[in-house]
Amino acid sequence: MTVTRRSFLMQLAASGGYAAARAAMTTLGLGAIDVASAGTNAPLNLAPGSGNGRSVLVLGAGIAGLVAAHELRKAGYTVRVIEARDRVGGRNWTIRNGTRIEFTDGTVQVADFAAGHYFNAGPARLPSHHRTILGYCREFGVELEAEVNSSRSAYFLPDAAKGGQPIQLRRAVNDARGRVAELLARAADRGALDRELGTDDRARLVEFLKVYGDLDGQLAFKGTERSGYTVYPGADGQVGERPEPLSLEALLDPDLWGALVFDELLIFQPTMLQPVGGMDRIPAAFQARLADVITLNTEVTSIRNTGDGAAGGVSVAVRDRSGGNARTLDADFAIVTFPLPVLAKVQTNFSAEVKEAIASVAYDAASKIAWQSERFWESGSNIYGGISVVKHPTALIWYPSGGFHRSTGVLVGCYNIGQAARDFTSLPLQAQFDASRAVIDRVHPGSAALLKNPVSVAWHKVPYSLGPWVHWATPHERQYVRLNRPEGRVHFAGEYLSQIGAWQEGAALSAHHAVAAIAAEVAGRAGKTASTSTSTSDFTTESAIIPTTERA
Amino acid sequence: MTVTRRSFLMQLAASGGYAAARAAMTTLGLGAIDVASAGTNAPLNLAPGSGNGRSVLVLGAGIAGLVAAHELRKAGYTVRVIEARDRVGGRNWTIRNGTRIEFTDGTVQVADFAAGHYFNAGPARLPSHHRTILGYCREFGVELEAEVNSSRSAYFLPDAAKGGQPIQLRRAVNDARGRVAELLARAADRGALDRELGTDDRARLVEFLKVYGDLDGQLAFKGTERSGYTVYPGADGQVGERPEPLSLEALLDPDLWGALVFDELLIFQPTMLQPVGGMDRIPAAFQARLADVITLNTEVTSIRNTGDGAAGGVSVAVRDRSGGNARTLDADFAIVTFPLPVLAKVQTNFSAEVKEAIASVAYDAASKIAWQSERFWESGSNIYGGISVVKHPTALIWYPSGGFHRSTGVLVGCYNIGQAARDFTSLPLQAQFDASRAVIDRVHPGSAALLKNPVSVAWHKVPYSLGPWVHWATPHERQYVRLNRPEGRVHFAGEYLSQIGAWQEGAALSAHHAVAAIAAEVAGRAGKTASTSTSTSDFTTESAIIPTTERA
Repeated sequence: MTVTRRSFLMQLAASGGYAAARAAMTTLGLGAIDVASAGTNAPLNLAPGSGNGRSVLVLGAGIAGLVAAHELRKAGYTVRVIEARDRVGGRNWTIRNGTRIEFTDGTVQVADFAAGHYFNAGPARLPSHHRTILGYCREFGVELEAEVNSSRSAYFLPDAAKGGQPIQLRRAVNDARGRVAELLARAADRGALDRELGTDDRARLVEFLKVYGDLDGQLAFKGTERSGYTVYPGADGQVGERPEPLSLEALLDPDLWGALVFDELLIFQPTMLQPVGGMDRIPAAFQARLADVITLNTEVTSIRNTGDGAAGGVSVAVRDRSGGNARTLDADFAIVTFPLPVLAKVQTNFSAEVKEAIASVAYDAASKIAWQSERFWESGSNIYGGISVVKHPTALIWYPSGGFHRSTGVLVGCYNIGQAARDFTSLPLQAQFDASRAVIDRVHPGSAALLKNPVSVAWHKVPYSLGPWVHWATPHERQYVRLNRPEGRVHFAGEYLSQIGAWQEGAALSAHHAVAAIAAEVAGRAGKTASTSTSTSDFTTESAIIPTTERA
Repeated sequence: MTVTRRSFLMQLAASGGYAAARAAMTTLGLGAIDVASAGTNAPLNLAPGSGNGRSVLVLGAGIAGLVAAHELRKAGYTVRVIEARDRVGGRNWTIRNGTRIEFTDGTVQVADFAAGHYFNAGPARLPSHHRTILGYCREFGVELEAEVNSSRSAYFLPDAAKGGQPIQLRRAVNDARGRVAELLARAADRGALDRELGTDDRARLVEFLKVYGDLDGQLAFKGTERSGYTVYPGADGQVGERPEPLSLEALLDPDLWGALVFDELLIFQPTMLQPVGGMDRIPAAFQARLADVITLNTEVTSIRNTGDGAAGGVSVAVRDRSGGNARTLDADFAIVTFPLPVLAKVQTNFSAEVKEAIASVAYDAASKIAWQSERFWESGSNIYGGISVVKHPTALIWYPSGGFHRSTGVLVGCYNIGQAARDFTSLPLQAQFDASRAVIDRVHPGSAALLKNPVSVAWHKVPYSLGPWVHWATPHERQYVRLNRPEGRVHFAGEYLSQIGAWQEGAALSAHHAVAAIAAEVAGRAGKTASTSTSTSDFTTESAIIPTTERA
């Protein structure tokens, strides 16, 4: 299940321990949402003009909605995008100086950052194999730079109850590999693997393990330069001084394991990328191309299928976010990209089955905290980007991937998910900030006083999001399969309806899926109805936007 | 021996095979040049004004020379830097459109690149723990960005004789880890490690290995999402399709091992950095601060110690590179930063011991080839920076770490060292380019036609370098120790006199070492001679630069 795959690091680090690791790995083993029929990854390729005379209402201007609107327009569809927030992007949200952060519980924060600083509260990295969203970056000229997802200079901070001294990741990673190689080389060398290995393979395996783990001629692991130095080599006679290799006991602490493997998970492997200046440069690029069809600050109150067959359409009631100016928009189709907890509050005439599917999928929780700070992690610890994993409810410290050596930067001092996030964000904000500050100071002693102006984004408390991603229950196939099929003229799209849940790539591919389904329906009906393909409504003309009711 | 550590990847990839791997690892195990007494890494901290009235000639404006001159000036020394080339930086050489590349064999190339493109022919990356050189970047405001040293989307290309199909690194790295974990888990599970492990540790090790290698409940490695997909997960029912795990036989190919470990070698671990716009932004920053004391295009023909004790000094004969305007410069001290093959050609009155040390140290060979090309590696292979390792004399393909998604970029299509480099660069340039193009096309079929305007830099053929770094023989202690001590008033500095050979960090620290030695000598003599600390010469006044001989 992809959401679990994505959040593997967080689960291990935040909820910690062996049980969490096993649960995550077991689910990882399942690999994907199990559906009856496999689809294809054929690129979306609608013929220009193929949508002429057809209209589509896109509900929600997150990545799925923006991608859908862009693709539909390229094919000639008449498109309108309705968005409740005062900005596009949805969970793709970059916070800068002055950004107002409101939670559903009434909490309000206003970011106080220096000019040029930003905090990607939602998605903050693009794996190199997420071709669809990267393709839009290429198409639109969104400038990208490397996002440093792992640094061997960063740390793992063990549980305070276990001593709690930070261990540099280069040491943990390479001592673990050394120990594993040593144990396997010894076992192979004395014939313990002869049922798996022929004689030639045994000898070659042992030679491989010497290289792999940096073993000595007697197959012993006695530490390695890969794990770094306590005193680095220098000029003249200044040879390096190495720490003792970590004990097997230290390495077999399950709290550590996430830190040892996370950057080999497919979605966390190098190269990771980020837009220069903030992740919201992606929705901003869509917005620049869709400005004339996007309506912000507008809530959807109801979605109704109207008519049947060729006469069918959708009727969507909206109102200004302030509550006024209620009106109804009609179109041939709608694509609904709302997170399900948001969609569940909208009145619809959907079937009981679809209503139940929408209501029954639980969303996860996640929170991030960002600080403005002098860049002590660079000057003091040689850390340039990457993540320190902490055995603590705040889960990690995430260092900025750009702006190296400037006087200050934005440090992410918490990224937790699931129950850990629910528990943590039930504390007063100040207590959350205090906890984040304290754990950063444990990894970087003396840094507490440098951490300024924190903000928290708890996605489960953010209006119009109400969660970071789906927490699919098992079995989950029913809702996933159902919502991947349209309800009348209403199609659903979002990262949660893809095999790449929680990622912008999944949102984009799900949008393609919905657009392709509409195109197929239009093409099929065009084939059946020949020349009667005139749109039943076209809300790009003023007359099509008809206020039918006014709500207080 | 650090030079071997640095070139480990290249050795494995270029000269290949198990023998090379073992040789490299054995040397790695030695870890450092074995000298009698360990020094310290105390930061250089000369008192302002402590050098007032003293003069130092710095011979060579590479990193060691620039660092020495900068530090000496800050302390009040009168400094002059003599450089034979028409630029500063030495081996830190960034090639742009129009750069002229001349070899000692008479070959001339002129780079023909689009505006904004560059090729770091020498150093091209800065490890995050190279604090000294990074400290100068911070001090001078040299803008840095992440250098992507490894990408899991890049490839290993096996020997053509072994089939030669490229293997994506994410697959090789993670299947190797899976196989290792599987073998060790099975051995541990059946008690084959009971002499190393207690019962509790055995159980914990097995659980760790399930996470580490992504094993199933029966301890079997059946492939992992970490190794990527043949068909990536998508929308709706598009689950991912995985390749078969690589066979143990494929993983035990010694040609592969370098690709599996290189990015855990200390000097190649993330985070790696690079100056935005080219590595020569570092020497350019020094030059901006030293412009008034740097003399370019000036060759040194002799270096002589003059006088004794407090009356001692140095007398350096120079001439314009064209051969004219011979003159002699006098100073209290000199720091000689020339590579030893260059210094060996200079007349000196050094002791026989020092002359022998200079003459007896061999330099290595290394060559790089750069191409301008459409960025097919990004659009076609999702590769954003990083290195593909090829079992071929060209050794690697190195993708640019910046300028993502622009129309073209500079691709490094060869980086070989040692005998492989000597053999390869003995071919005509066109044959070298043809070979590079052909191997790139094997990794990226169809790319051959996109590769334009190649240039080669063979460091062993570059005047005033005559090699990339020292190839220390064993035992090598004698020359290293001797040249780390001054000869009269002449001090030596360069990366080759540090434990971080071949890296700018080593050059900077060696420069600090020489500067500190001069400062100690000055302080000692000042203590002895009280108020008689007037400089014996000061060549910053015009009168001090006295042409004494004129050579044709």
